[in-house]
Amino acid sequence: MRVGHTASIAGIGESAYAKWGGSADRSELGLALDAVRAACRDAGIHPADIDGLASYSNDASLPALIHAALGMKALRHASLVWGGGGGGLMGALANAVAAVVSGQAHVVAVFRGICQGQKGRFGAGSKPGPTANFAFPFGLLLPVQNAALMARRHFHVYGTSADTLAEIAVAFRANAQKNPRALMRDKPLAATDHAASRMISDPLHLLDCCLESDAAAAVLVTSKERARDLARSPVDVLAVGTGSDSGWGMGFLGGHNMPIDIYAHGNAGMLGRELFAAAGIVPSDIDVAQFYDAFTPMVVQALGDYGFVPHDGVAEFVAGGALRHDGALPCNTSGGSLSEAYVHGANLLVEAVRQLRGESCNQVSDAELAFVGGGPGVAPTSAGILSRAA
Amino acid sequence: MRVGHTASIAGIGESAYAKWGGSADRSELGLALDAVRAACRDAGIHPADIDGLASYSNDASLPALIHAALGMKALRHASLVWGGGGGGLMGALANAVAAVVSGQAHVVAVFRGICQGQKGRFGAGSKPGPTANFAFPFGLLLPVQNAALMARRHFHVYGTSADTLAEIAVAFRANAQKNPRALMRDKPLAATDHAASRMISDPLHLLDCCLESDAAAAVLVTSKERARDLARSPVDVLAVGTGSDSGWGMGFLGGHNMPIDIYAHGNAGMLGRELFAAAGIVPSDIDVAQFYDAFTPMVVQALGDYGFVPHDGVAEFVAGGALRHDGALPCNTSGGSLSEAYVHGANLLVEAVRQLRGESCNQVSDAELAFVGGGPGVAPTSAGILSRAA
Repeated sequence: MRVGHTASIAGIGESAYAKWGGSADRSELGLALDAVRAACRDAGIHPADIDGLASYSNDASLPALIHAALGMKALRHASLVWGGGGGGLMGALANAVAAVVSGQAHVVAVFRGICQGQKGRFGAGSKPGPTANFAFPFGLLLPVQNAALMARRHFHVYGTSADTLAEIAVAFRANAQKNPRALMRDKPLAATDHAASRMISDPLHLLDCCLESDAAAAVLVTSKERARDLARSPVDVLAVGTGSDSGWGMGFLGGHNMPIDIYAHGNAGMLGRELFAAAGIVPSDIDVAQFYDAFTPMVVQALGDYGFVPHDGVAEFVAGGALRHDGALPCNTSGGSLSEAYVHGANLLVEAVRQLRGESCNQVSDAELAFVGGGPGVAPTSAGILSRAA
Repeated sequence: MRVGHTASIAGIGESAYAKWGGSADRSELGLALDAVRAACRDAGIHPADIDGLASYSNDASLPALIHAALGMKALRHASLVWGGGGGGLMGALANAVAAVVSGQAHVVAVFRGICQGQKGRFGAGSKPGPTANFAFPFGLLLPVQNAALMARRHFHVYGTSADTLAEIAVAFRANAQKNPRALMRDKPLAATDHAASRMISDPLHLLDCCLESDAAAAVLVTSKERARDLARSPVDVLAVGTGSDSGWGMGFLGGHNMPIDIYAHGNAGMLGRELFAAAGIVPSDIDVAQFYDAFTPMVVQALGDYGFVPHDGVAEFVAGGALRHDGALPCNTSGGSLSEAYVHGANLLVEAVRQLRGESCNQVSDAELAFVGGGPGVAPTSAGILSRAA
């Protein structure tokens, strides 16, 4: 949040990660429960003591189902974030933090289960609706097409290129090689592989697109005081929030009705400035970042929009290896949505916590501050700054 | 909320209320914007200064659309409550209060637009899903059928009857006669009319069911301090929250898998006890109540479950005229979902504020404390206690 009232993350958990359809014997709810229970074991909190639930994107794992399955003694908070995109990732954390800070609940599970073999695919075409009716007649049906248009504009205005995107895919794939959970472990990638991969929507190749997975991830949010009495080193939420620049327009991945000068870079500028101001730090203080990476250009936008580097400096920054594990801003150190698993971004938050606890498979030495950003271009988006507990 | 951190309601607004299909020239979004803009005029807040949005039930009036339409300078909070039922009514207020108390946002619009001619009908059958797959083969398809089963159980265990339901319908219809917004104004009702109305799902007649409307309502939530500098007398939120008794089971209007001893009365017992404890008052202190009334038995359940009268005393309490405008607990003083308009309960919250400002068409003399309750039987449900500012 943006004025210093904070809470902490006391535990993290994940289900087994499988590729799309690989958990056909499990339900989306079952995977979500696996992740929440794992977070409870991690924190040393009994599942019955969870009293709040926060998710996003019309999650079908309903509070009543989780309440019953976990044997929760009370349900005191249940919140959701609008929309289908990766903007809600940290919005769910923001809602959980608000519930704890305001005293509405004591232990809130922020979770996301996704089992795309059973519930449909996020990357598939949307149904017609107010944000789509003007685009569908022109063949603009899929998220990847919208991401491609924004990427092309970023190339044109800021000098990024397919090489920038390739380096993002390659860097995250390299991180996956040390991660036993990563679906793309043992499948290292070179920039030439990226260029040779099938074109999906020019300029985006297959390897610019995230995985499709059956997976779930969760974190437990509680008060700073309580977190310090639990099993694990707490991670404090320095600042977290939802946001969207004014003028961004109508919706998911670009409504195509915004002023052309902001079309390329996303809608997270004000959000980034406010979060860093609230946390009292600057982007260069961040030790490790996790950016929502449904498509590689979202990382390009995030680097510029959240203030890590000017938009016209992104190409050089990325080309210089900055996003690599040993670079200036190690990113998506578990492999991310591109190479670990697609959990709608919830695995990025888990990995940020792992980094601040010193437990990542690609541990950034002495990581104290982590940034997690939802996808710019999704409205609203969300982001947060996490800190290793002092 | 339940530990004393609070915020205030600074303004209220409504669209024109029309019956189902009566606003066919307007969109659901357009109605929602009407209500939010009216709340801004009421409070003396410019729409551009709203920076948070809270709704419920998969609201299709997306934050990005409202952001653009109102010309909001910033969007800092956007939250939703799960599910299709009337449990989210005060959950949306709870989320807004949490956002303000935690500093995430400064002015949050809690709103609900409903335009059932365009978006489908809430009372229609659900799609099969985890909560429905065990019920559908037995013909349990509609919300009204689930409400009917719970009503029958309440009759059996607690001695309520169709006469109790009739008096609720009649009392609320009487309130609508003085309300120029009410769709059922000039259509007074007698208990004999209720009994003669078409049977929908035994024991529920047509007049046990709410209207189907095209309508929207909104309130603006801000800090107690700021509310005191605005145009209208603020109404303070003494306590608000989401909740569901443990053991209630799976979901909307009863999953039919809970212990039989709690099947009749709903899932709001713990929520009611915690809210009154947090507010430091008892149910008999309440001057006026608004209960979510999609179906009359929800009011029966609410009276017992929120602690206003023991479940086995509800029949006598209602029969004695307690819910009438001049009764012991004046209820749904605008006519409610049964006789004003069905706005998914948002109009009930608006009416509670009006009562505490002394502006209701059925003003309860010197009303200082109001209770607003979501439907027990919907999981989770939500409720709150409002107070006239000192």
